Amino acid sequence: MKSSFWGDYLSRNYVVGVDLGGTKILTAVADRQGSVLSRVRVATGADLGQDHVINEIVTSVAVALREAGVSTEAVAAAGIGVPGPLDPQTGVVYLAPNLGWQNLSLGEILGSRLKLPVYVDNDANLAALGECVYGAGQSADNLVYITVSTGVGGGLILGGKIYHGFSGGAGEIGHITLAADGPRCGCGNLGCLEALASGTAIAKRAVALVAEGRGLGILSRAGGDRGGVSARVVAAAASNGDGEAILIMRDAGRYLGMAVAGILNLLNPSVVVLGGGVMQSGSILWEAMLETTRRCALSSALQEVSIVRAALGEEAGVMGALALALEKSQGV
Amino acid sequence: MKSSFWGDYLSRNYVVGVDLGGTKILTAVADRQGSVLSRVRVATGADLGQDHVINEIVTSVAVALREAGVSTEAVAAAGIGVPGPLDPQTGVVYLAPNLGWQNLSLGEILGSRLKLPVYVDNDANLAALGECVYGAGQSADNLVYITVSTGVGGGLILGGKIYHGFSGGAGEIGHITLAADGPRCGCGNLGCLEALASGTAIAKRAVALVAEGRGLGILSRAGGDRGGVSARVVAAAASNGDGEAILIMRDAGRYLGMAVAGILNLLNPSVVVLGGGVMQSGSILWEAMLETTRRCALSSALQEVSIVRAALGEEAGVMGALALALEKSQGV
Repeated sequence: MKSSFWGDYLSRNYVVGVDLGGTKILTAVADRQGSVLSRVRVATGADLGQDHVINEIVTSVAVALREAGVSTEAVAAAGIGVPGPLDPQTGVVYLAPNLGWQNLSLGEILGSRLKLPVYVDNDANLAALGECVYGAGQSADNLVYITVSTGVGGGLILGGKIYHGFSGGAGEIGHITLAADGPRCGCGNLGCLEALASGTAIAKRAVALVAEGRGLGILSRAGGDRGGVSARVVAAAASNGDGEAILIMRDAGRYLGMAVAGILNLLNPSVVVLGGGVMQSGSILWEAMLETTRRCALSSALQEVSIVRAALGEEAGVMGALALALEKSQGV
Repeated sequence: MKSSFWGDYLSRNYVVGVDLGGTKILTAVADRQGSVLSRVRVATGADLGQDHVINEIVTSVAVALREAGVSTEAVAAAGIGVPGPLDPQTGVVYLAPNLGWQNLSLGEILGSRLKLPVYVDNDANLAALGECVYGAGQSADNLVYITVSTGVGGGLILGGKIYHGFSGGAGEIGHITLAADGPRCGCGNLGCLEALASGTAIAKRAVALVAEGRGLGILSRAGGDRGGVSARVVAAAASNGDGEAILIMRDAGRYLGMAVAGILNLLNPSVVVLGGGVMQSGSILWEAMLETTRRCALSSALQEVSIVRAALGEEAGVMGALALALEKSQGV
């Protein structure tokens, strides 16, 4: 007896997740319990053009399925995270600057190439979902994910689902304004969290310090090379006890704490997950963040929340893509 | 033929809304289309104790029903807004400082007194819902409501419903931290929006100015009486062109704009509604708020949002209570 269309998809016991980044594509295959059966990493090759990138995605899915020993016919759905604003309903990517894409119907194109239902979402939203379901998030219904690296990004899980807002733009945690007269952000505004606490912001402050002939401890950590002053160098100098570096890391942590406190008071989440390279830079920034959060959040919101480090590292996005595919194919 | 229990409630064509305040109780009766048939206002008499207040609620509902010509048997549900943290699931009010209440099972008590399903929510959340459904909110799925008067409060409508957060504490917009070294807020923290832009904050700045022997234009607006310096007086002096008053109103507007921008970037709502006495104080604060919002919000979030004045005034809460009762009895 031939099964119906829906019955057919229901009997499909696997999902595919893809995290499409500016430099690499991570692809994974999992079963319905969320156990990962295979992982593949390939270079994006964004400079080789849109068709090349789409071919790389399709190939990486084929390789991941082969490594997992799963046929396409056994896959219920694929989820894919893309760096840029998009419409999760239609799968149209409005803009992906790192890929040179504009108004691309990625969901449709991949759906027809992979012969699967394909669900597209923003990479930061999927990282939030990944940490929520498989990482540090304890499958919380109300979770805020913040990633601090070159920039500051994030995603919101509200009521158990990714919260997209009215036009898909929610979760721009890096652009919460914290200092009306603060430094200019890449977005053009002044005093955004990203301009105060990102790796770029930390490095910029250190570079400015060194340019003034100060920050000698930081400069020495960079081997005396001004061009080598980075957030990582500042963090290392701070961990080593350098006063100026400690001040820079603490200030970044304080602004992060202000943002976290504001988010606690506004959204009353049960979990806040902080990830990204800068959050792994020792305890100085983390402690300053926690101290300011405790000082600025209402006790009612503070009592209920766990503030934790991300658990999945660079796999958060692909795990979220798997979670999205699972969630979307659950009802089928 | 006797109808079933649910069938019985479905045939009930009216709802009751109550806004329980520290000084007054507003009660209204509406039909299923949301047309208000009667309105009643009585004093809360909080100092006369809990039983008195509950009796006043029950009586005001009876009076409102009689004025509307509606019998209790024709009412599907009642909604009630309470000033303080509570559990909307159980109807337990944790704390209502203005009423002297603590851990009161209000939903249960009123349900048995009124012989109706009673739904309890926070007053600011219901004002948000009221403005969303019947006021300036255009029935938006994603709406942020901010009320600026003595304090700063608010509520979030996300995905078409009141967003409560993990433990009912969401929407504390007044306690978003905007200035790490700002003035102390009533909540004990520093630099909350409420400590920077509420009527109390505006008055405090003016009082301090006058105490320094400055702010003569403001003092003269208060009839030369230092004790008469209020936010209303500052607003009037500002509208009259007084430079110091203008500066105070503009600063409050700027902080409001910072908060609105942060909320736009975080939540990407389609409507922001601003109400409360301070928002009605002329155009200086409003324009400063808009200018800062435009400067600090991402253009993607800004393009999609309408920032509007509240339309319901002090009726927002009771209209929200009606909307809640309608929403909850829709499925019945």
